[in-house]
Amino acid sequence: MARDVANRRLRAGIVGGGPGSFIGAVHRVAAELDGQASVIAGAMSRDPQKAQEAAAAWYLQRSYASFQEMAEAEAKREDGIDFVIIATPNYMHFPVAKAFLEQGIHVVCDKPMTLTLEEAQELVKLVESKQIIFALSHNYTGYPAVRQARQMVRQGALGDIRKVLVEYIQDWLIEPVERSGNKQAQWRTDPSKSGVAGCVGDIGTHAENLLEFITGLKVTSLCADLSTFVEGRALDDDANMLLRLENGGKGVLTCSQIAAGEENNLSIRIYGSKAGLEWHQQEPNTLLFKPFGQPQQVYRTNMGFMSDESKALSRLPAGHPEGFYEAFANIYRLAIADIRRLERGQPLEGGYPTVQDGLRGLQFIVKAVESSQHGATWVSLD
Amino acid sequence: MARDVANRRLRAGIVGGGPGSFIGAVHRVAAELDGQASVIAGAMSRDPQKAQEAAAAWYLQRSYASFQEMAEAEAKREDGIDFVIIATPNYMHFPVAKAFLEQGIHVVCDKPMTLTLEEAQELVKLVESKQIIFALSHNYTGYPAVRQARQMVRQGALGDIRKVLVEYIQDWLIEPVERSGNKQAQWRTDPSKSGVAGCVGDIGTHAENLLEFITGLKVTSLCADLSTFVEGRALDDDANMLLRLENGGKGVLTCSQIAAGEENNLSIRIYGSKAGLEWHQQEPNTLLFKPFGQPQQVYRTNMGFMSDESKALSRLPAGHPEGFYEAFANIYRLAIADIRRLERGQPLEGGYPTVQDGLRGLQFIVKAVESSQHGATWVSLD
Amino acid sequence: MARDVANRRLRAGIVGGGPGSFIGAVHRVAAELDGQASVIAGAMSRDPQKAQEAAAAWYLQRSYASFQEMAEAEAKREDGIDFVIIATPNYMHFPVAKAFLEQGIHVVCDKPMTLTLEEAQELVKLVESKQIIFALSHNYTGYPAVRQARQMVRQGALGDIRKVLVEYIQDWLIEPVERSGNKQAQWRTDPSKSGVAGCVGDIGTHAENLLEFITGLKVTSLCADLSTFVEGRALDDDANMLLRLENGGKGVLTCSQIAAGEENNLSIRIYGSKAGLEWHQQEPNTLLFKPFGQPQQVYRTNMGFMSDESKALSRLPAGHPEGFYEAFANIYRLAIADIRRLERGQPLEGGYPTVQDGLRGLQFIVKAVESSQHGATWVSLD
Amino acid sequence: MARDVANRRLRAGIVGGGPGSFIGAVHRVAAELDGQASVIAGAMSRDPQKAQEAAAAWYLQRSYASFQEMAEAEAKREDGIDFVIIATPNYMHFPVAKAFLEQGIHVVCDKPMTLTLEEAQELVKLVESKQIIFALSHNYTGYPAVRQARQMVRQGALGDIRKVLVEYIQDWLIEPVERSGNKQAQWRTDPSKSGVAGCVGDIGTHAENLLEFITGLKVTSLCADLSTFVEGRALDDDANMLLRLENGGKGVLTCSQIAAGEENNLSIRIYGSKAGLEWHQQEPNTLLFKPFGQPQQVYRTNMGFMSDESKALSRLPAGHPEGFYEAFANIYRLAIADIRRLERGQPLEGGYPTVQDGLRGLQFIVKAVESSQHGATWVSLD
Repeated sequence: MARDVANRRLRAGIVGGGPGSFIGAVHRVAAELDGQASVIAGAMSRDPQKAQEAAAAWYLQRSYASFQEMAEAEAKREDGIDFVIIATPNYMHFPVAKAFLEQGIHVVCDKPMTLTLEEAQELVKLVESKQIIFALSHNYTGYPAVRQARQMVRQGALGDIRKVLVEYIQDWLIEPVERSGNKQAQWRTDPSKSGVAGCVGDIGTHAENLLEFITGLKVTSLCADLSTFVEGRALDDDANMLLRLENGGKGVLTCSQIAAGEENNLSIRIYGSKAGLEWHQQEPNTLLFKPFGQPQQVYRTNMGFMSDESKALSRLPAGHPEGFYEAFANIYRLAIADIRRLERGQPLEGGYPTVQDGLRGLQFIVKAVESSQHGATWVSLD
Repeated sequence: MARDVANRRLRAGIVGGGPGSFIGAVHRVAAELDGQASVIAGAMSRDPQKAQEAAAAWYLQRSYASFQEMAEAEAKREDGIDFVIIATPNYMHFPVAKAFLEQGIHVVCDKPMTLTLEEAQELVKLVESKQIIFALSHNYTGYPAVRQARQMVRQGALGDIRKVLVEYIQDWLIEPVERSGNKQAQWRTDPSKSGVAGCVGDIGTHAENLLEFITGLKVTSLCADLSTFVEGRALDDDANMLLRLENGGKGVLTCSQIAAGEENNLSIRIYGSKAGLEWHQQEPNTLLFKPFGQPQQVYRTNMGFMSDESKALSRLPAGHPEGFYEAFANIYRLAIADIRRLERGQPLEGGYPTVQDGLRGLQFIVKAVESSQHGATWVSLD
Repeated sequence: MARDVANRRLRAGIVGGGPGSFIGAVHRVAAELDGQASVIAGAMSRDPQKAQEAAAAWYLQRSYASFQEMAEAEAKREDGIDFVIIATPNYMHFPVAKAFLEQGIHVVCDKPMTLTLEEAQELVKLVESKQIIFALSHNYTGYPAVRQARQMVRQGALGDIRKVLVEYIQDWLIEPVERSGNKQAQWRTDPSKSGVAGCVGDIGTHAENLLEFITGLKVTSLCADLSTFVEGRALDDDANMLLRLENGGKGVLTCSQIAAGEENNLSIRIYGSKAGLEWHQQEPNTLLFKPFGQPQQVYRTNMGFMSDESKALSRLPAGHPEGFYEAFANIYRLAIADIRRLERGQPLEGGYPTVQDGLRGLQFIVKAVESSQHGATWVSLD
Repeated sequence: MARDVANRRLRAGIVGGGPGSFIGAVHRVAAELDGQASVIAGAMSRDPQKAQEAAAAWYLQRSYASFQEMAEAEAKREDGIDFVIIATPNYMHFPVAKAFLEQGIHVVCDKPMTLTLEEAQELVKLVESKQIIFALSHNYTGYPAVRQARQMVRQGALGDIRKVLVEYIQDWLIEPVERSGNKQAQWRTDPSKSGVAGCVGDIGTHAENLLEFITGLKVTSLCADLSTFVEGRALDDDANMLLRLENGGKGVLTCSQIAAGEENNLSIRIYGSKAGLEWHQQEPNTLLFKPFGQPQQVYRTNMGFMSDESKALSRLPAGHPEGFYEAFANIYRLAIADIRRLERGQPLEGGYPTVQDGLRGLQFIVKAVESSQHGATWVSLD
């Protein structure tokens, strides 16, 4: 249902984000950071009491007991929400997305997009059948340095891509914290809520997405060795993979949630026939460019020489660190701009991860698990 | 004028922040980041047309042609602003702050607090005579790592402080950009708008404030060598200073806005009789602790072992970089919490820079200029 | 032939190291660095004229036209060499080593030890049949930080080893320099001189050796994807491998000589159930220890808290960088100490890579090539 | 006494370097590293027994009971030493240097060159009156990256030098170890053996020398605040200084031996009107070049793009770390080359620190102490 969004902040609703949630608050901050949207409604917990309390803590105008109720009610209001944020555990992404899409409400959804490949395919069809914005929170693509990296690859600064090393390693599941009350750990290690993969689905997909986003190359096959190091855990907590890329390039992807001493280390190195690139999420404002035979160059967020796209996603002068929230907010900035364009009848410009990226992520997860189950053998990703 | 602030976001107004402003937008993001306040009114430019346009771009509810008008009108409204943000060039800080303080409206003001020592002293008296919150944007004290550092010094982890090296170096004034239309440069190099110091007032004060904040020690005397390297500039663009601390410790403070290749490099190293500390604003989530004879330790934002205060000012799990906005937002978080306490009649807890810090900053500026004018000789700061 | 080595520097001879050699000069510096040996004889080139000139440039006392001649002549002299340094291309290692071993002359040999597994096995037998010192230049194990890492693993500071990420990446073969006169490139890309592997043999073996040296764990199987990115090159110039370790741990090994912008980046990260370790050869004096849930600790060469073994292999106070030569010299220090012990009839203490390590390296090379030729499938290393 | 030095390694003698010495062994390694010299004689201790034992441990051919005896005896021998290494505490530099210079034996001497300005001036005269090589161990100028830095300044890559920040900070004297048997500490904190300054003479001179070496600019005046933080110590263990340079540039020099957690942190940053430079001795193979408005560039030892002089002082391919010994050895390489040129009657090329640098160091020490004694006031260095 199209609303006039000119001259006001957009109105957002949120599903999930209640007690024990980490990502809910991230979405709120990211959605509101540019002053282009306010979260004003929510179905923040399955427990109505908790939902109410969470909504009050955020000063929301409207709290709902269920997402179905919220979707229907908001769609009918004159001042209903313009878009919904889905910040639930994985298994709820699909039904919630479907409910709001069917009401014509734009969606910003967490990754991985769904539990199964089939659900992902259904969402793709649903989104394609509508005039609607669907953005997926592969938030790491929101960093200005990542955009710069992508542009440098596109412009041929690296030559032909030959080798990619991407990793996403953490340590927060090094012990069986899912058995001692950690809510984040509970659902992420539970196949019924998280899907067929644990670590691979939770963070491996970010690594795969980042690789394809920057290089513009598809992973065509992979050989994945998934492990569960913590006894009694139902899903993988570590994985190593060999990759082959569509252009003949090779790669390695490693992800872990049991790598002692690692916080949230998403890093990528890309080597071409002319130059290399290196980026570390934990120091996200620095991008190393490594032209063969010349001094390495240090690209920094919002320096004048950065690409227009990269600068457009920077908010502060160089040297004023922009971090995780700001990158996440860039996904919102781009999606909200398209929501405004859509409402004005202008051509969309995209730039944020879409339902297609969500489908791609599910393909990756399913194939990685399949490879590992067959003894870490090669499987095709197409 | 006390208002009931329970169960709602606070309402903020802003003075300044119009076209060409850098810090205005920073204040908006920082004030709103935690979902505890919304900027809804403004007197964003001296030019009413520009003020109107700036307010519209931010979707403000009310735009005023002057700060005087705004102070009076908002004080009278039932739904008037709870606090004002002062984001103007330096010379306007004093009259604006005075106008809102006299109306009983809480203030968050940029640094340096005033143009002159006398104005600063007048503001101190005004604030002390009222039940009112006055917060100063020495935003770098908002970093969780800085709070950790302060606590470690307080707890004696460093022993007696012997030596402090603090620096704040940039390069954005390396060329006379004030003559080619850069608004930020224009007022910052104009004594009538910036005060008696340029670089020393703009960033040297941050360095001095950080030193005293972390160490808890007063600088008792200084020997300052101010320079103006860009021809025709009216104020200093670089300074080196020797410092002596109240406990017998020694220090060096260097600041520059002509240090080629430096972005916004505020760094501090503190050496005690037992250990040292090192922090760099450009990688703000890392604090190095250097106990003599033992391995250096890397303290990181929001790790479990950080102090309670430091963790309370962190929003994300370790490894999810928090940056400039988040630190700035911590000043707002602390000030807003005190505004709520004040309205509830609870004891204040502080934690943000105050009008006293503003006065201290002016003392530092005045004495540094005096020292330099006397041939870089020692002057007392008391 | 046992000689009295007391009260004098040992006498060394060198085979190879003539014009265009890189490693020859490294051996000379490393062998002599502690003042425990002098290189005094050589067969430095197949070309007698060049051999003569090279020997003169080094002020050698005796120059030979062939290694055979040298082995025989030196064995007969009263003041003959105590040990020989083999610094030739790979294919000569075996015949030269054999010739000197048969004369009872101790050997320090470059890696990989031989061209084939069979030659390696023959050398093992030969060495084991004699009272003789055979040291292999897996020089990276000579770094004090690497010794510290090994000890920390041994003492259980990491808990059970779960994951190892090791890499050795360079860029010097990014272009077909073997076709434009680069001698180092010529023999290294020529199967008749280098063996069945290129990059994997030249530097992959160092990575594998380092992994097993520090962890004390055997790689039991691997899945290797070797590539030749530079057209027309006969051997691999890049490889990615999945590894499985004898204790159930997993690993990734990547090596490359076409990774643009990388100099000589040998790095290893080891993750256990309690802590992690990280070391980078290009900043070799720093070892990061990462205990789960605690601050990372920075171990530095020759700090008082380092292990006795690590300190015994350090020569300078902390902060005085020790580099590649010093690590290489530690292999000589340890081997020379054993030569002296042998001559004195004392028990040997080892500590340097041996003929067994050389055999292990060949196994690794052969299996990696086999895996890749079978489509990057798993092969056992036993 | 001129000897034919063609076709052989030079013969060196050493004074000092006996039990408890740190720098003696450094000189031996550095002098011999390139295979251009061997240390074969010594007067290594005032205690004849210890001298004998030290000489035996180094396998020296000749041990002397006193430097005077050594100077006379070696001068008379056909196979006498070509140069002498002075590795004694400071107060012995002058008499030893004088003794060997008078015998026409070339000298490599530790810094600071003498105890007093008068001695330094006498040495200058003595050296200038002879055809003789006198090299001073300002070893940090031997790093390839430092040479690169100097050349970049010379070629104008930085524009006009405006600001220099140089520091040399350590922590090894943080406790009164001179009272618990540390020989290095004993003489360095004893005015009769070390001179009028402690920390300033021991390491402050290196910092000052490095600044002048790289920038090519003289320090014309300084304002120095020396401190003694460890009670009962007779000399300074810390100092902060403001500097003014001959071209109008400004600087800060800080040095300390009580800076907890610092190993041997000699660092320099130079800012010009066009670009900046940054170098840290503890990671000596990296030089940061910071052109205004462009990406920072990472210059690395022995990369192809480095200057000819810098590459000529590098021994290993990039990425093979060269450290303290190698830089020190470069002083020897350059001095030995001049000794050979002198003997061949060729023009000298220099490149190593000279007796003039030694005099400059004494001027700096004397003036820094004078400034501090006058209450940290400005003094001229001319």
